[in-house]
Amino acid sequence: MSRPAPRGVLLLTGAMLPLGAARADEGMWTFDAFPAAKMKAEYGWAPDQAWLDRARLSNVKLGGCSASFVSSSGLILTNHHCAADCLEDLSDKNNDLYANGFTARRRSEERMCPGLQSEVVTNIGDVTSQVKQAIGGAIGLAAVKARTGVIASIEKASCPDTATTRCQVVSLYGGGQYKLYTYRKYSDVRLVWAPEAAAQTFGGDPDNYNFPRYALDASFVRAYENGKPVVTPHHLNWTARDPKKGELIFVVGNPGSTERMLTQSQFSYQREVNLPIELAINSELRGRLIQAMANNPDRAREGEVTLFGIENNLKRTIGRTRALGDQAFSAMLAKSETELRAKSAGNAAIGNPWGEIERAVGALRGIDLERRFSRPSGELMNYALRLVRAAEERAKPNSERLPGYSDSALPLLEKQLLDARPVYPWLEQLRMEWSLLKAREYLGSDHAQSRLLLGKESPEGLSERLVAGTRLADAAVRKGLWDGGATAIAASSDPMIMYARAIDANDRRLQKIYDEQVDGPLTAARAKLADARFAAFGASTYPDATGSLRITYGKVGGWTDRGVTTDYRTRWAGAFDRATGARPFALAPAILASKARLNLDGTLDFTYASDTIGGNSGSPVIDRDGNIIGANFDRNLPGLRNDYAYDLTMARSIAVSTSAIEQALKVVYPAPELLAELHAK
Amino acid sequence: MSRPAPRGVLLLTGAMLPLGAARADEGMWTFDAFPAAKMKAEYGWAPDQAWLDRARLSNVKLGGCSASFVSSSGLILTNHHCAADCLEDLSDKNNDLYANGFTARRRSEERMCPGLQSEVVTNIGDVTSQVKQAIGGAIGLAAVKARTGVIASIEKASCPDTATTRCQVVSLYGGGQYKLYTYRKYSDVRLVWAPEAAAQTFGGDPDNYNFPRYALDASFVRAYENGKPVVTPHHLNWTARDPKKGELIFVVGNPGSTERMLTQSQFSYQREVNLPIELAINSELRGRLIQAMANNPDRAREGEVTLFGIENNLKRTIGRTRALGDQAFSAMLAKSETELRAKSAGNAAIGNPWGEIERAVGALRGIDLERRFSRPSGELMNYALRLVRAAEERAKPNSERLPGYSDSALPLLEKQLLDARPVYPWLEQLRMEWSLLKAREYLGSDHAQSRLLLGKESPEGLSERLVAGTRLADAAVRKGLWDGGATAIAASSDPMIMYARAIDANDRRLQKIYDEQVDGPLTAARAKLADARFAAFGASTYPDATGSLRITYGKVGGWTDRGVTTDYRTRWAGAFDRATGARPFALAPAILASKARLNLDGTLDFTYASDTIGGNSGSPVIDRDGNIIGANFDRNLPGLRNDYAYDLTMARSIAVSTSAIEQALKVVYPAPELLAELHAK
Repeated sequence: MSRPAPRGVLLLTGAMLPLGAARADEGMWTFDAFPAAKMKAEYGWAPDQAWLDRARLSNVKLGGCSASFVSSSGLILTNHHCAADCLEDLSDKNNDLYANGFTARRRSEERMCPGLQSEVVTNIGDVTSQVKQAIGGAIGLAAVKARTGVIASIEKASCPDTATTRCQVVSLYGGGQYKLYTYRKYSDVRLVWAPEAAAQTFGGDPDNYNFPRYALDASFVRAYENGKPVVTPHHLNWTARDPKKGELIFVVGNPGSTERMLTQSQFSYQREVNLPIELAINSELRGRLIQAMANNPDRAREGEVTLFGIENNLKRTIGRTRALGDQAFSAMLAKSETELRAKSAGNAAIGNPWGEIERAVGALRGIDLERRFSRPSGELMNYALRLVRAAEERAKPNSERLPGYSDSALPLLEKQLLDARPVYPWLEQLRMEWSLLKAREYLGSDHAQSRLLLGKESPEGLSERLVAGTRLADAAVRKGLWDGGATAIAASSDPMIMYARAIDANDRRLQKIYDEQVDGPLTAARAKLADARFAAFGASTYPDATGSLRITYGKVGGWTDRGVTTDYRTRWAGAFDRATGARPFALAPAILASKARLNLDGTLDFTYASDTIGGNSGSPVIDRDGNIIGANFDRNLPGLRNDYAYDLTMARSIAVSTSAIEQALKVVYPAPELLAELHAK
Repeated sequence: MSRPAPRGVLLLTGAMLPLGAARADEGMWTFDAFPAAKMKAEYGWAPDQAWLDRARLSNVKLGGCSASFVSSSGLILTNHHCAADCLEDLSDKNNDLYANGFTARRRSEERMCPGLQSEVVTNIGDVTSQVKQAIGGAIGLAAVKARTGVIASIEKASCPDTATTRCQVVSLYGGGQYKLYTYRKYSDVRLVWAPEAAAQTFGGDPDNYNFPRYALDASFVRAYENGKPVVTPHHLNWTARDPKKGELIFVVGNPGSTERMLTQSQFSYQREVNLPIELAINSELRGRLIQAMANNPDRAREGEVTLFGIENNLKRTIGRTRALGDQAFSAMLAKSETELRAKSAGNAAIGNPWGEIERAVGALRGIDLERRFSRPSGELMNYALRLVRAAEERAKPNSERLPGYSDSALPLLEKQLLDARPVYPWLEQLRMEWSLLKAREYLGSDHAQSRLLLGKESPEGLSERLVAGTRLADAAVRKGLWDGGATAIAASSDPMIMYARAIDANDRRLQKIYDEQVDGPLTAARAKLADARFAAFGASTYPDATGSLRITYGKVGGWTDRGVTTDYRTRWAGAFDRATGARPFALAPAILASKARLNLDGTLDFTYASDTIGGNSGSPVIDRDGNIIGANFDRNLPGLRNDYAYDLTMARSIAVSTSAIEQALKVVYPAPELLAELHAK
């Protein structure tokens, strides 16, 4: 394979622009504002409303991932790495589903994934004026409270049936628009099929965010309701054909977060404060985890998915650091802001949101370390903190609660807290200890918050005492505390609960300062900034990613970087060429054993120009006819800049092809029932 | 204690300036250019030549540290952390000198420190014209070769007796001046006294680069020759008095490296390339080491000094990252360059060194990752690489060898390679594996250099094979390979030697590119830059630190940061107040047991305005009368910016007082013989 030489430096291409007037193929569009006219002008064709409706109703939000229905019986295709938590939760020493893969031969063998919920967007409404009216002239903390309150009320009123629906007010353009998303939800998601982990992790961290790539990053789950598979007339048609170079494709899913509307003062904060800290502390955590797992098969199994998450995040942080450290890229971002400011000059309604944001960022810098290190890490600590907080919040009226504890949010929170999942004490100890060490390091030993977090104990000793002493790993204990509410929490002598009680007030205090000095002012300023963009670019712009449903389109194809062209697809043969036998370049055993039966020329993974970000994992790649031809799972290295700007000429997204999945189902991990279901008309 | 709140942000004070016209108290002066007139103008007094000569001849270069003679029998005071390698080397499971401390009751109990050498500067001569003449009009690789060759020849000719002397041509002002330093060397250094490690590491990483501080960072070693203590008529007089606020002090030692002459393109390289990589990879190494040592007392003992080094370095990297991430600080550096360029405009002899440096930095960026990751880490790997390279270099004429392998450098190299020292296989494995993983991560799996380093092996497997298979931990094996030269190296089937042989050519290739495109052009450009500084500021400037002998002066005192004033000294009582009983805030057992006998009001550590950097560890703090009143061991947090600029108002250096050492010798770790020697007239 031909790869560019040292990848420390990325060239800046003229085609890269931050969020402004969106160009061809750029944009994470909402379904209620799809740029059909623009697309028609570019491609001579655009999907009609029926096409868009089917794409939307086939699409599944699956935890932090994306997915799609691919049969009429609730069958869902997503990435393997999106089902990794479930696979790990269902694994133990003697039955390692994560490592060995899983195939349900019949429905009764399908196994419920703890904490996982699937949701379909059934309606999108505009509540901008309602929310803005409620905020009115309020500023700071009052504005945040007003916003939180009206959102909780709208959500509750719009989705009275919380068993089957969820309502969510999505803030777009940083507060410029508020949209009400209604979801049909299915809280019972079961594992159907997954390959061996090595089929997905082949290439490991070195190949992550890289292409050529040879990952079978696919799995199937199924939505259930009342113990039965959900009937899903809206689903994508399965086609196992190879993608064609240059063909038009759509990617539908839930991109998590982009920062294309940031102002210069916010970029400075990223560059000077946030990214260096994230880089240092998460690199250290990575090292601790790698070392803890070395030569320890149990820990290696128990920690693998966590490590993947840390490394994936870290690679993104490194990519963002490089992007903002690149003078040409930074100059481009600065120029874009200068232009918007020039276009907005003299518009009294807009005023100076940049200055307001700069002040808010100044306040953020002042409390950054305290906020960042206000609570120790770990699953058990998370349980404790959420149980403690929920007990207090649930006693309040819906509209006065903290976000995340409103009536519309409680059912999923309850599920996440109470579903039984394994907890690994060594990993809890490691993460809690690490986070407390970092708190002390960055705040300083003599800081009041260090004293609050540690008392006279050491990070190591405190973590050991709490992890050894708590009973929160037991779902029944958590249920008792949830059901018992404030009384049970106040009476609890569980050391982790007692600790969470002791630090919660400080966390709330910081949140108030943040709301008053940062979030409130930012919301007001960003709404003006959104107006400035609308005034300058009209409706041709799209909002930053917020984890809500989006559609993006582009063409299947590779890219050229400094004279080196990378082809748009990999073949199965390439995986065998690349394998060394040593992890992470060791092929999954079943793939290795299937070589003779595989069509080695068939497509494994492929790339396309499309504007995605983390959260788009599992998104269906849909052709013009509405068929699914792949499951999006990654970006290439230039795509790591998608946080700040989308580079049409170089940024590519990566999918595993349905062709590859079909071969896997036929030859490697035979699942004839599943194949029959996929091909049923 | 009053400490500033979150220490993420440092204020920029007007008194901070990069290297230009040096102000009062700023400057790491060479002994042949002490600014006596300037000091006299500021203080009404300056040391005469006899004072300076005694300070110089009492001063000891001790590996990468500084130190001083404090008796007429070769007794040397340095930091505990400068003797830590020695203490660890002499420790084992059953006799942990590092943890428990060490006191030689008589000379015969003093124990030789492997690899350690002590050196005193006996002469400084100017060889600028000789070196510049040899370089002549050569550029690139030819210039580097000419420079290396003439330096090797000068050093060899000037120090024919390599058993007792060493000659070193020191390049100052990045090539603006070349000075010949002649050292009297003593290759036999023995451990005399050290407190428990916890007496020095109290406060650990959290308190490192912080003050108030409570570290007894002192130890004594002794220089020997022919099996006898060296007679040292030139030594500092011991005084155990407390330092006085505002009194004038001098710090003499070997500051390792500053970067105050960097140009904007070099700062960009630091900010965008070097610092983020260093931050990420060393944080990961730190995490691996912490985890490997957790709950493993043997490893905790064997790895502690290594971990301290990594954490110390990392804290410095974080400090540098913050400094260069600070917009006001960066603007100040940029302004300084703009001013020098303006002053130099129209001076044809100077030309445009900034542009030349920018081109060289461009070339550096192009090969940065390959150079950075050209060789795996670890003691055993270092042995192998140096043995392989030495075998080839020693066969060449002196003036044609790579730097570090000239006749003047060989004796110390030989000592470092052949002295017996313990090697810890787990640590070797960890470091080698980590470095290979990082090489693959940053270069990419498909890079030719990744393939050269790994072949088809994994970083884990390769490291395991080499560490398990090599016999280089045995000093006798190393001696065989050293004595056997090229023939022995070529015939060796030691896997580490075979590996080093296989990768050496690539390393040499990279060095050539570096010399041709980076070092050569930089040397030429920096010489012009030095001329520009001389023209603009006259002789009032001082060169960047280069690990060579310097003297700096200032006043004992604390500082005020955002309204919070920190006193200039700590007392023993403070250590007892600060102790929590949990590491790193657990007092050393002997100190704890001595509380009743200590003068708790006596000074432990103290601060003073003086321009120091890493390498100044162990430097004597000398009063006006030439008495030693402390051993410098650290800087405060604002002092972390000393790399780039010295801030007189806030940057402070930190010493352990002789008063504290005296109390320790009397009460905590009784050493009456040592006290008698220190107080002998």
